[in-house]
Amino acid sequence: MADAGSGAVGIVMFAHGARDPRWAEPFLRIAEQVRAAAPGTPVELAYLDFMTPDLRGAIHRLVACGVERIRVVPLFFGPGGHLRTDVPNLIAEETAAHPRLVIELAPAAGEDPGVVAAIAAYCVRNGG
Amino acid sequence: MADAGSGAVGIVMFAHGARDPRWAEPFLRIAEQVRAAAPGTPVELAYLDFMTPDLRGAIHRLVACGVERIRVVPLFFGPGGHLRTDVPNLIAEETAAHPRLVIELAPAAGEDPGVVAAIAAYCVRNGG
Repeated sequence: MADAGSGAVGIVMFAHGARDPRWAEPFLRIAEQVRAAAPGTPVELAYLDFMTPDLRGAIHRLVACGVERIRVVPLFFGPGGHLRTDVPNLIAEETAAHPRLVIELAPAAGEDPGVVAAIAAYCVRNGG
Repeated sequence: MADAGSGAVGIVMFAHGARDPRWAEPFLRIAEQVRAAAPGTPVELAYLDFMTPDLRGAIHRLVACGVERIRVVPLFFGPGGHLRTDVPNLIAEETAAHPRLVIELAPAAGEDPGVVAAIAAYCVRNGG
């Protein structure tokens, strides 16, 4: 991964994780598209459970790239307990461990109107 | 819900479920859009865990509408253990319980290129 330069922003795409490694396949495709669309931005995938890296590991990789601000984008459908409690707690730990780093949490992907519309369109196409 | 008529198709939008009821908010929005786009098709939400109705309950509702074929559209990101094992087992149980009903399982929403692209676009927009 290229050096991100001073003040650079990095993205952590943060997903739940699962026991079956094939569960991660869509996230690998999403990450590939994000990297293609934002070629100057370091992008890491991270998982809450079962898979690696975890949030800490992904943040360490971005810090090693010179990133000073990180946007954690949750690849979750809904704003449940993980996003209301677990993820903010993890971010608070990492913020304490990296005082110069700004870590921001975006809303869940499932709260985005474009994502909602795409899933609805998928349901309609597959409902016949 | 209107009577679906003879041979009609119904959709079950099937999500994981979570303890926090706010987790379901995106799915309610998605269901609203699907109903608006397919006004003649009975649409039910169902959950694997924590929330109601479960798959059985949603199928009973559709059968009561006169539906004879059901498309189960999994609102899951990846093809992990739930979709490879748990959901097919549930569908097999319901197929045995309703011999005249055809129940088909669509791929996970996260495997759809349109959904992948929408999530990637969301990440790019929220990564700056």
